[in-house]
Amino acid sequence: MTNCVLCKEELKPEEGQLIWRGDDCRVILVNDPDLPGFCRVIWNHHVAEMTDLSHGEREHLMSLVFAVEEAVRHVMCPDKVNIAALGNMVPHIHWHVIPRYQDDAFFPGSAWSKRTQEVKEAVLETRRQKALELPGAVRAAIATLF
Amino acid sequence: MTNCVLCKEELKPEEGQLIWRGDDCRVILVNDPDLPGFCRVIWNHHVAEMTDLSHGEREHLMSLVFAVEEAVRHVMCPDKVNIAALGNMVPHIHWHVIPRYQDDAFFPGSAWSKRTQEVKEAVLETRRQKALELPGAVRAAIATLF
Repeated sequence: MTNCVLCKEELKPEEGQLIWRGDDCRVILVNDPDLPGFCRVIWNHHVAEMTDLSHGEREHLMSLVFAVEEAVRHVMCPDKVNIAALGNMVPHIHWHVIPRYQDDAFFPGSAWSKRTQEVKEAVLETRRQKALELPGAVRAAIATLF
Repeated sequence: MTNCVLCKEELKPEEGQLIWRGDDCRVILVNDPDLPGFCRVIWNHHVAEMTDLSHGEREHLMSLVFAVEEAVRHVMCPDKVNIAALGNMVPHIHWHVIPRYQDDAFFPGSAWSKRTQEVKEAVLETRRQKALELPGAVRAAIATLF
């Protein structure tokens, strides 16, 4: 769709980094200052809901989401992983895969909830450094699927 | 786990209604006054992350989540469906499947974001009436899987 930001596939460097692209999906490492390691798995074509996809397409997309979760757990060692497909603002299927920590800015709320605490800059910086390993780890995890 | 509310499988009538239970998962119609039709798909055993499950278990759980999404779309006719596995408060796998409307209390934010608008009681009541059809529709959608 002409006015859908996820159809355009434009990604400014300050928004994030494309780390993998296949025929059907792509994976972005999101540049979220509060949540280092936040990844997004995006269906390339404009489809709004998971149940608009065929069963095979759903399985393919979820296998990528879980490959990203594997990599996120391995690299970021979070206390919890959050996975969500919302799309209220951009109704084009995309999955958020977010490493969460008990000391992160929104814990135990969602990443869209109000802030609950301040996070030490040194803690965030350590996590940002870890996240540099994610592109390679995500690509390796996806490579095992095919 | 002894202190996990989702392991206990206790459900007070004011919290919601068990609408389907299998060996591995169960489905709850959540009693959320703001979000009629909100369903939850819960893995019966205590597991924290999707990637703690085997590939077959993940596929089974997701096929139930998407069957619930089918039923929610058919019965509730929402503007968007939100699907999420967070578990920051209760790290026992459960998927939220939430029908969302442009005029609901949190739109276009997440169901865990701050309120954005007031919803007319008549609109909510119409949706609550529709949600009475969900238990049957969810069971019928799940029946097609097996």
